[in-house]
Amino acid sequence: MNVLVVNCGSSSLKYQLINMSDESVIAKGLVERIGIKGSVLKHEIPGMDKVIIEKPMPDHKVAIGLVLEALVDEKHGAIKDMKEISAVGHRVVHAGEKFSDSVVIDDEVIKALEECIELAPLHNPANLMGIAACKELMPNTPMVGVFDTAFHQTMPKSSYIYPLPYELYEKYGIRRYGFHGTSHRYVSQRAAEFLGKKLEDLKIITCHLGNGASLAAIDGGKCVDTSMGFTPLEGLVMGTRCGDIDPAIVTFIMEKENLDLEGINNLMNKKSGVLGISGVSSDFRDIENAAKEGNERAQLAIDTFDKSVKKYIGSYAAEMGGVDVIIFTAGLGENSASNREEICKGLEFMGVKIDPEKNNVRGKDAIISTDDSKVKVLVIPTNEELMIAKDTQALLK
Amino acid sequence: MNVLVVNCGSSSLKYQLINMSDESVIAKGLVERIGIKGSVLKHEIPGMDKVIIEKPMPDHKVAIGLVLEALVDEKHGAIKDMKEISAVGHRVVHAGEKFSDSVVIDDEVIKALEECIELAPLHNPANLMGIAACKELMPNTPMVGVFDTAFHQTMPKSSYIYPLPYELYEKYGIRRYGFHGTSHRYVSQRAAEFLGKKLEDLKIITCHLGNGASLAAIDGGKCVDTSMGFTPLEGLVMGTRCGDIDPAIVTFIMEKENLDLEGINNLMNKKSGVLGISGVSSDFRDIENAAKEGNERAQLAIDTFDKSVKKYIGSYAAEMGGVDVIIFTAGLGENSASNREEICKGLEFMGVKIDPEKNNVRGKDAIISTDDSKVKVLVIPTNEELMIAKDTQALLK
Repeated sequence: MNVLVVNCGSSSLKYQLINMSDESVIAKGLVERIGIKGSVLKHEIPGMDKVIIEKPMPDHKVAIGLVLEALVDEKHGAIKDMKEISAVGHRVVHAGEKFSDSVVIDDEVIKALEECIELAPLHNPANLMGIAACKELMPNTPMVGVFDTAFHQTMPKSSYIYPLPYELYEKYGIRRYGFHGTSHRYVSQRAAEFLGKKLEDLKIITCHLGNGASLAAIDGGKCVDTSMGFTPLEGLVMGTRCGDIDPAIVTFIMEKENLDLEGINNLMNKKSGVLGISGVSSDFRDIENAAKEGNERAQLAIDTFDKSVKKYIGSYAAEMGGVDVIIFTAGLGENSASNREEICKGLEFMGVKIDPEKNNVRGKDAIISTDDSKVKVLVIPTNEELMIAKDTQALLK
Repeated sequence: MNVLVVNCGSSSLKYQLINMSDESVIAKGLVERIGIKGSVLKHEIPGMDKVIIEKPMPDHKVAIGLVLEALVDEKHGAIKDMKEISAVGHRVVHAGEKFSDSVVIDDEVIKALEECIELAPLHNPANLMGIAACKELMPNTPMVGVFDTAFHQTMPKSSYIYPLPYELYEKYGIRRYGFHGTSHRYVSQRAAEFLGKKLEDLKIITCHLGNGASLAAIDGGKCVDTSMGFTPLEGLVMGTRCGDIDPAIVTFIMEKENLDLEGINNLMNKKSGVLGISGVSSDFRDIENAAKEGNERAQLAIDTFDKSVKKYIGSYAAEMGGVDVIIFTAGLGENSASNREEICKGLEFMGVKIDPEKNNVRGKDAIISTDDSKVKVLVIPTNEELMIAKDTQALLK
């Protein structure tokens, strides 16, 4: 069974064709600048040269049409016929309180996701365009929706309610939803497998540290808390997002800088985080280089980021009554030994001991804690596409 | 030496006259409705009936004049002559980055505090009015300023900088300041004394839980982090304040509810917190009663509050690399055994064990952890007035 995994942004589209018999990626690619001059499709068969296809792509339907063409192309294709695509798995950002699991997409589901547009005005419309395009081009191929928010729907109400007038929750659905759910779920399941333990027996803290970053507290396989909230702005210090700040600062800046709602949201989402503190970059490699050269604000950005992760780990351990496993994943989590070391420094009191030698690892499943560390600390590369493909396969079986 | 401690609000004034030889309160009182019809002074000598003085008090100067009259009154006074007031200690909310300790008030200090008005537009003007009134009425009595923010000035930059464009810190002083500093300092010092240990050897987490609530992480006597931030809105769930929320919610509500800056700040400061969740009250006694009668939102408010304190304790323990002492203080912290128990539940993994019997205590210095608890958990009633008087005495010696 081959599953096509599709992840649509407003002007982009990522895809992977996964052969579920051995979970191998048989083709993958990226479309950029959909609806913008200079549309381009970068298509890749593992082990072969990348194919660059430059053609006007006014909308997602044309883009997906070209992807399907590329997949069955005689020269650089991966399959002979579109019928070899058994199913499509769509990444969808926001399912509100409607879905706590992946679902087979039908008209009801589409309607439900449309109702969530208000909660994810940038993402859900793009995801829905991808679904509509696939539906038109492959009307007989079943589709599954896998939601960033779904995994977090198990949180108890005391984790997801905000201390605001309760009516705002009822009226607008203002509550903590959490994001990166597919990643948190994948790495927690993989970690249990890797350790040879039952997920139900473990208290896990997953640290998804990329340009966007979030933590989840997972007790017995169920998410009980997560650091992103109503939107992906809350929580950790991120590349360009501020994460947690005094909410009174929002209005203070609006007044002083004469910003409207869009202006302040742009500032908090695009100009803040480690970029805002350092003034150097949102990319940790640039910031680390600057810090090594003596840039104090770059060092401050790193310290502030590490501290924000460390504090969340402490708070989630307190919330779950302890922790058995801490997992680092995503770009920074998988690759930065120095950040991992700094984050775990001082957590010996709760049973965390990093082995500097074992920690010297990048992008592969590994235990980085000492043998006698009460808490197992792991690196687990995330694989949201595989998780989406697995859900798709499971639902259609 | 008698020290008059003065705490001015915009339309109120609290005072205590403290005899420093035995730290006893020899008179205290409260003025309400200054500048408003129905001004009243409630004056009290411990052990005697309260005296109610109803007179027009158009401003703080008139109010303080009446307080001084009451203090030297033949019938209900505490001293014979104003000369028996050796000094005045003023509580001042915000000293920005200007003062990290209490100071003798001179013109320079007044100027510095005027420059902080922008950071505390509701509080500093009232504090300054009190200082001006005392200066006029007691020109030869030395005065000391004791600041809510001062104790937190030892925080490292990675604790106080926000992940926002750095220029906003330089331009407007947007950073974490923290409040309740006099209380956090007092109870941490008192706890060390009570335990017969050196403050320098202890990692302490102080939980000031009143209608306003904040935590501080105090390592070796120095504050390294605190939950209130740029304003007293950030941090824990409070009586009517929301504490930490996704900053994107601020603009979302403004748009949906068509609120201006004042409107949203009013909502977050006055209509949120446990009042907002429960819909019942901002007072925990009312909420507990409602919860006992089966009100689910009241129970949710309690759970959310307790969880927010528990998570901060975990995060501060992580930040300091462990904790030796946890202190509960202020209205709820000193009096609510059930909240203390719930907050500490599940923290055994970090060495916290509450003794339910010892925890059955209200408003007095007490150890409430078990004898074998690695972390000592204490109740220490706060006494900001005494701390202000002590600072005043120390600076004038």
